[in-house]
Amino acid sequence: MEYEVLKVSSKSVPTSVAGAIAGVIQKQGFVELQAVGAGATNQAIKSVAIARAYLSETGIDLICTPEFFNVTIDDEDRSAIKLIVEKRK
Amino acid sequence: MEYEVLKVSSKSVPTSVAGAIAGVIQKQGFVELQAVGAGATNQAIKSVAIARAYLSETGIDLICTPEFFNVTIDDEDRSAIKLIVEKRK
Repeated sequence: MEYEVLKVSSKSVPTSVAGAIAGVIQKQGFVELQAVGAGATNQAIKSVAIARAYLSETGIDLICTPEFFNVTIDDEDRSAIKLIVEKRK
Repeated sequence: MEYEVLKVSSKSVPTSVAGAIAGVIQKQGFVELQAVGAGATNQAIKSVAIARAYLSETGIDLICTPEFFNVTIDDEDRSAIKLIVEKRK
C-alpha cells in the first residue's frame, strides 16, 4: 500500500510538521513519521503533541505507536524511529 | 488520583525503562513517562518501542499520547514531554 510518510529532521519546525500531520490525518486517517537520531525524534514527538492539541478542537484524539526500523545513510546502518500516528478508535 | 510516574533522563537505559513500563502496565493498565530535554525524550520513545515489542508477545498492543507540560528545574521554567502509555482498547 502506498501512503504518505513525513520525514522529520532535527531542524524540522514542530508547528509546521504538526500542520502536515493534521492535514494527512484528515485525508487518510493516519500518518507515518520517520526520524533518524535523537534530535529528529524529539522534534517528531513535539510535532505530535502540537497536532494533538490542534485536532482535539475538532474532536479527534490522536495516538501514536513508536517502533524501530533500520535505514542506511551514507553506507552506514542506523537505527531510526517510525511513529504511526492515528485517530483513537 | 495517585499513580506511578516514570521519570526518564538522557542517561536512562531504554531496555530497563521498557521493563518498568511493562511491569506498571500489567499492574495499573497505563503509565506516565516524563522527559525533560531532547535526549530524555528520545530515550523515552525508544523505551516505549521496546516495551511494545515485549508486550506484543502477550497480546498487548501499547499506544502512547504525548503532551507538553512545564517544569521548574533550578528556578528555570522548562518545557517537558509527558507520555501516557496505555493498552489499545
